[in-house]
Amino acid sequence: MTAPNHSLPKAYFTEEDSAAVVTGQNINAKDARLSEVMDVITHHLHAAVKEIEPTQEEWFHAIQFLTATGHKCDDWRQEFILLSDVLGVSMLVDAINSRRPKGASENTVLGPFHVADAPEYPMGTNICLDAKGEDMVVRGRVLDVDGNPLEGVKIDVWQANDEGFYDVQQKGLQPEFNLRGVFRTGADGSYWFKAVRPKHYSIPADGPVGALLDGLGRHPWRPAHLHYIISKDGFDTVTTHIFDPDDPYIDNDAVFGVKESLIAAFDKIEDPAKIAKMGFGGTYYWNVDFDFVLAPKAAT
Amino acid sequence: MTAPNHSLPKAYFTEEDSAAVVTGQNINAKDARLSEVMDVITHHLHAAVKEIEPTQEEWFHAIQFLTATGHKCDDWRQEFILLSDVLGVSMLVDAINSRRPKGASENTVLGPFHVADAPEYPMGTNICLDAKGEDMVVRGRVLDVDGNPLEGVKIDVWQANDEGFYDVQQKGLQPEFNLRGVFRTGADGSYWFKAVRPKHYSIPADGPVGALLDGLGRHPWRPAHLHYIISKDGFDTVTTHIFDPDDPYIDNDAVFGVKESLIAAFDKIEDPAKIAKMGFGGTYYWNVDFDFVLAPKAAT
Repeated sequence: MTAPNHSLPKAYFTEEDSAAVVTGQNINAKDARLSEVMDVITHHLHAAVKEIEPTQEEWFHAIQFLTATGHKCDDWRQEFILLSDVLGVSMLVDAINSRRPKGASENTVLGPFHVADAPEYPMGTNICLDAKGEDMVVRGRVLDVDGNPLEGVKIDVWQANDEGFYDVQQKGLQPEFNLRGVFRTGADGSYWFKAVRPKHYSIPADGPVGALLDGLGRHPWRPAHLHYIISKDGFDTVTTHIFDPDDPYIDNDAVFGVKESLIAAFDKIEDPAKIAKMGFGGTYYWNVDFDFVLAPKAAT
Repeated sequence: MTAPNHSLPKAYFTEEDSAAVVTGQNINAKDARLSEVMDVITHHLHAAVKEIEPTQEEWFHAIQFLTATGHKCDDWRQEFILLSDVLGVSMLVDAINSRRPKGASENTVLGPFHVADAPEYPMGTNICLDAKGEDMVVRGRVLDVDGNPLEGVKIDVWQANDEGFYDVQQKGLQPEFNLRGVFRTGADGSYWFKAVRPKHYSIPADGPVGALLDGLGRHPWRPAHLHYIISKDGFDTVTTHIFDPDDPYIDNDAVFGVKESLIAAFDKIEDPAKIAKMGFGGTYYWNVDFDFVLAPKAAT
C-alpha cells in the first residue's frame, strides 16, 4: 500500500472547480512534461464536457466509441491515427513541428505508405512498372530560399496508381516498388521522372471512424496526390504531397492534407512531337511542373 | 463512390484556422447533436494541441496510450471508463446530470459493483453474511427538502468488506449478496441496518491508466465508503456514497468521488449495554448516522 501524501490538496469534487480538483493531485508527478500535458488536456476535457453537457447515455456512447476504436487497431490498422487524421490533429501536429520561413515549401502528413528502401533511379526513369494508367511527366527544381538551385538533394517519391492503390496495398497485383523511387538533383537543382496520373482513394471507412464520418455527413476520400520527402544536409527536410487540382475531392480532403501552396497544375500535352520525345505510346500525357524550396535547418 | 458536395467550404489546412477548417466539413451532418458535440471536441482538441505543441514522438505516444487503453478493455475490464474516472470526467458528467436544490443530498458515481437483484430485508438486518470485520450500525432518516420524513423510500446499499473487496469480486470466497441489501422506510422515514466497517481499495492499476497515475505521482486508492441508491416515486433518485472520514485516502480519492457533504462520522461505541442491545459479541462497534434529503423530481 502506498502511504497517502499529506501535502496533496484536498480533492473534494465540485462541478465548478472540477478540473483544478483533478490536476491539483499531480503535484508529485514523476514526469514534469506529462504533468504539463495532462494539465492542458484535463482543463480542455472538462471545459468541453461543461459545454456539451452530455447525458449519461452520451457519455457511455463516447466510451463505447473509444473502446471500438481501440479494438479496431491491430498490426495492420491504426484506427486512432485515422481518428487523429480526420479530426485534423495529425495535420496540426505536423504544422506545429514544421513551421518554416515564408517562401519555403510546406509540409503535409507522411501517411502510412512510405517504404524506406525504394530504389534510386537516374533522372527521367519511369517509376510506373506495370504500364497501367495515364502517362505523366513530373519535373521541377529544388531551390534554397534565395532562389539558388540545390545540388545533391535526395527526392523520395511515392504515389497511388490509377485505381488509387499503393503497391504495398496490392502485393502480388502490383510489382514491388511500383510508383516509388529516389532521385538526386544535379548541379542545376532540377529533377524529373515519369509515372502515371494518380487517383483519389478512400481512407479505411469500415470502422468506428468511418461511422463517425458518416454521421457527420463527411466522405472518406483523399484527392489524388504524389508524396515527396525532400532532404539535404543542412536543410529542413520537407515531407509533403503535391495535389491534382482537378480531382473531385481537392477541396475537402478527408484528412485535411491539402494546403493551398501544394496544389500543382496537371497540363494535358497532346503535341505528337512532345509525346514521341518522351517515348510514350498514347495520344496525350500529363505534365506536372512543381518546384520546391528548402529552408536552412532550424537551430534547435 | 460518393459524389463530392460542392456546397462544402474549401478545407485547405492552415495552422491558424485548423479547427474551423475541420468543423466546416460537418455542414451536411446527419446527426445534429453529433455535429454539435464534435464541434466542441474539435475546438478544444485543437486548442489543447496548440498549447501543448507536442513533438511527433509525443503525439505517437498519445496514440499508443489510447490504443493500449482500448486493447485493455474486455467483457470484465473497461479501461476507458477508468480513464474517465481518474480524470474526473465521470464525476463531472454525474454532477451535470444531477444538479439539485441546496440542501438535497448530492450524487456521486455509481461505480461498477452494483447488482440489480439484491435481497430486500427488514430494518436492522445484518447484511454481513460471513461475520468478517468490525461490527457497524448504519442509521438515519430520509427527508424531503422541507424536513418531512419520507415513507416507502427504497434504500439499496452495497459496500466492500473489511479487506476492500465486493462479493462479486470474490465469488466463492464471500457469500453471494454479502454486504448488499434493500430496505424500505416506514412512516418515520428512518432506516437502519448492521454491517461491517468497509475498507479502502485500489482501482485496477495494472493497465495504461495505472501507468498514467504512476507517472503523475498519483495513487490508485479509493477511500472506504458505502454505496446507496435512494429512490421514491416523484423524487429525484440519489445515487451516492457515504465516506469514512478517518480513511487515509479520504482527501484524495483516485476517482474524485468524495464531496464534502458525503463525509459521514464513524463513532466508536464501547458501551457494553449498547453492544449487548445490538447483539454484537465484540468490545466495540462503529455507529454511523447519516440522513438523506430527496428533492422533487425535476420537470423534464
